[in-house]
Amino acid sequence: MTEVTRILARYLVQAKAEDIPAAVKQEAVRSFLNWLGCAVGGSVHPTLDRALEALRPFMGSGQATVLGRGEKVDILNAAFLNGISSHVFDFDDTHLKTIIHPAGPVAAAILALAEHRPVSGAEFLTAFILGVETECRIGNSVYPAHYDIGWHITGTAGVFGAAAATGKLLGLDEQQMIWALGIAGTQSSGFREMFGTMCKSFHPGRAAQNGLTAALLAKQNFTSSDRVLEAPRGFAQVMSTARNFDEITVGLGEHFEISLNTYKPFACGIVIHPSIDGCVQLRNENSLKADDVASIELTVHPLVLELTGKKTPRTGLEGKFSVYHSSSVAIIHGAAGEVEYHDEVVRDPEVIALRDRITAVASPDIREDEVIIRLTTRDGRTLSKHVKHAIGSLERPMSDADLEKKFHGLVDPVIGDRTADALLSLARGIGDLPDVGEIARVGAGNKQQARSN
Amino acid sequence: MTEVTRILARYLVQAKAEDIPAAVKQEAVRSFLNWLGCAVGGSVHPTLDRALEALRPFMGSGQATVLGRGEKVDILNAAFLNGISSHVFDFDDTHLKTIIHPAGPVAAAILALAEHRPVSGAEFLTAFILGVETECRIGNSVYPAHYDIGWHITGTAGVFGAAAATGKLLGLDEQQMIWALGIAGTQSSGFREMFGTMCKSFHPGRAAQNGLTAALLAKQNFTSSDRVLEAPRGFAQVMSTARNFDEITVGLGEHFEISLNTYKPFACGIVIHPSIDGCVQLRNENSLKADDVASIELTVHPLVLELTGKKTPRTGLEGKFSVYHSSSVAIIHGAAGEVEYHDEVVRDPEVIALRDRITAVASPDIREDEVIIRLTTRDGRTLSKHVKHAIGSLERPMSDADLEKKFHGLVDPVIGDRTADALLSLARGIGDLPDVGEIARVGAGNKQQARSN
Repeated sequence: MTEVTRILARYLVQAKAEDIPAAVKQEAVRSFLNWLGCAVGGSVHPTLDRALEALRPFMGSGQATVLGRGEKVDILNAAFLNGISSHVFDFDDTHLKTIIHPAGPVAAAILALAEHRPVSGAEFLTAFILGVETECRIGNSVYPAHYDIGWHITGTAGVFGAAAATGKLLGLDEQQMIWALGIAGTQSSGFREMFGTMCKSFHPGRAAQNGLTAALLAKQNFTSSDRVLEAPRGFAQVMSTARNFDEITVGLGEHFEISLNTYKPFACGIVIHPSIDGCVQLRNENSLKADDVASIELTVHPLVLELTGKKTPRTGLEGKFSVYHSSSVAIIHGAAGEVEYHDEVVRDPEVIALRDRITAVASPDIREDEVIIRLTTRDGRTLSKHVKHAIGSLERPMSDADLEKKFHGLVDPVIGDRTADALLSLARGIGDLPDVGEIARVGAGNKQQARSN
Repeated sequence: MTEVTRILARYLVQAKAEDIPAAVKQEAVRSFLNWLGCAVGGSVHPTLDRALEALRPFMGSGQATVLGRGEKVDILNAAFLNGISSHVFDFDDTHLKTIIHPAGPVAAAILALAEHRPVSGAEFLTAFILGVETECRIGNSVYPAHYDIGWHITGTAGVFGAAAATGKLLGLDEQQMIWALGIAGTQSSGFREMFGTMCKSFHPGRAAQNGLTAALLAKQNFTSSDRVLEAPRGFAQVMSTARNFDEITVGLGEHFEISLNTYKPFACGIVIHPSIDGCVQLRNENSLKADDVASIELTVHPLVLELTGKKTPRTGLEGKFSVYHSSSVAIIHGAAGEVEYHDEVVRDPEVIALRDRITAVASPDIREDEVIIRLTTRDGRTLSKHVKHAIGSLERPMSDADLEKKFHGLVDPVIGDRTADALLSLARGIGDLPDVGEIARVGAGNKQQARSN
């Protein structure tokens, strides 16, 4: 069998910033900016409060920033916590081919490391691109079989991405990079069963932390298998029922998976986005109110019901896994941002009443970014909408302006609009920064200043 | 489907020390004593040097002892490091029904926690017994299918045991215990592909650390699924092709898996023990030297070749996965302790020459603790030996005196025979100790005293 792990490791070690096309780097900047907004925005979530309360007594201190919280911990825990906060709203980026959220495990790990070992923006972007390349190629090699078994692929593939990116920044040689991938792989974990609980965002957090751990260990020649990806008892055999190693080894350096990255306009699982998009359009075009609607029938991709079929969500987190709640707020509020998934909105009687008038039917003829909506009004009209590609898809990407608006919506409430402006400016120009740690220090927010006074 | 996770969690929360039979507690003392010897003995291994070198800059400090090394780190990393050192020689205990090494993940986690939150020996033993019960029952429910896929069951099941035991010491309520098992399960990981590398002992280390993390998080109401064991996308479905939940839920508190624990007289994979035992017996009964032996033919259980079929090991670690090397040193040295797996012994020309005259044949009629040996001498004799149950098996257990001799063999070279005596005495009487942390402090060894002077 081809030496899959070695081929990938060799590429990662040899890849150079100057060989990566400008358009790829520009998409990396967009991915990072989107990630940073999600991480600062998510930092106020109770998931972070509980993780810090539980583990702070056992953390090292003073090394790296917990974004949005003005607190510094050791780099491994910073990677963990920022990885959690970036995914806790389910609002981060998506590699649609695999449903991996690629930035989380990688960016959280390298940003933490960058505060400990200063790196330029150019080095940082290269490592980021290579980390995303690694996790998405590994994801491609086993998707969808691996995901269908029940693995949360953002965690299981993400740990490889974090190891690759931090290994690049640590200057690992080929053998060490092979070991880093091995140590990462043997920690690959995370069940889809955890969706709707605090463990979902725990997965990319842990992937960031474990991948960084793997690279640090490999740097000290901590050994692992040389064939974690392809061996009979390695990742692709143990954790999937099908695999195609060409997805990992063919065309390295010729095309980049980060070019396929997408960003969410709505704060929930991406498979619901076409339904929300269509409901918002119907609402705005017809000035609909909840009371006008007799019923809504959604014809959706089968994954929509499998992933987001919760009929009676009770919490905000559960609401993100309900196509019914999401479509209801799309009609009532014309939006599905983070606020529409607060607990009180999920429990709002008006939202519940409309939610219960919505049905969904799965059809194998519908693509994942598509929906057909049939809405009946109380006065007897039938309105319909066919969304061929949801906003935020590769065919209808969010513009830079959309992304910056989303960034402000997430970041302003946490660190204030002026600091948010400064942070956005740094992120936009990350490619020219001499020291990326500056982003983490500004992203800490005002609490840090308050505490250090 | 039965609420498997809840039934287990409820038992763990309600179980009381006084309901556990004295014989079970006595076996727990033997298991702990054997574990402690392995952990102190293994602490000098380069695996520990490299892990500490890589990660020390990011650890908290001063909370819990790294056994044998006179250094204190945060409790999560102490659990990690002591878990590694206890398994690095492959000399720790074995639950033969599942090939789980049960003590490592559990003891490493609760000993570290006991230095942070003092507990009596009675509480400690109860938590230890329950942790072992948890991991072995979960192992029973999926073994052998889970193991056959390629999972290193000591890591994958061990993380549940660590969470259960530390959760018991933290006083988790039923819901929190369910979450602790969930957070543990979604970190379940470790490939058999890593056998023969530093990642093998990394697995129980990480299981201890991750299980402790899970319990600490659950204590702060960090949520997970309520059904990690039985859900369609939970542990037993995702990580195994067959499962029997009765193994988890039936007879809780009536019989105890730790009663089935065994201890190794030889410092290698347990499936080789019958071959070593038989070769040592043949050697001693016939005063054999290497030059007397023309050939040896071993008839073994199929797992022997699957797990330990390395014909030409190059390092000590690889030697532990070679039935050929192990049988060769059994004839030449009459032993297979840690020293017989040093690199220089594996490379010794006399050992190699005899190793190459040994063949092994798998037979489905041979049990795992059985071997038939046919040895031909250069002067034309044929000697044979049928070992029905290897020393160290349940049928031929090591005596308390055997265990204490093994303890001294491992511990004396690291912390000196006088400190080893003191440590052994504490371990033997652990059930009556007011504060188990004392064991960790004495087990630190003299280096700690040297440093604090």
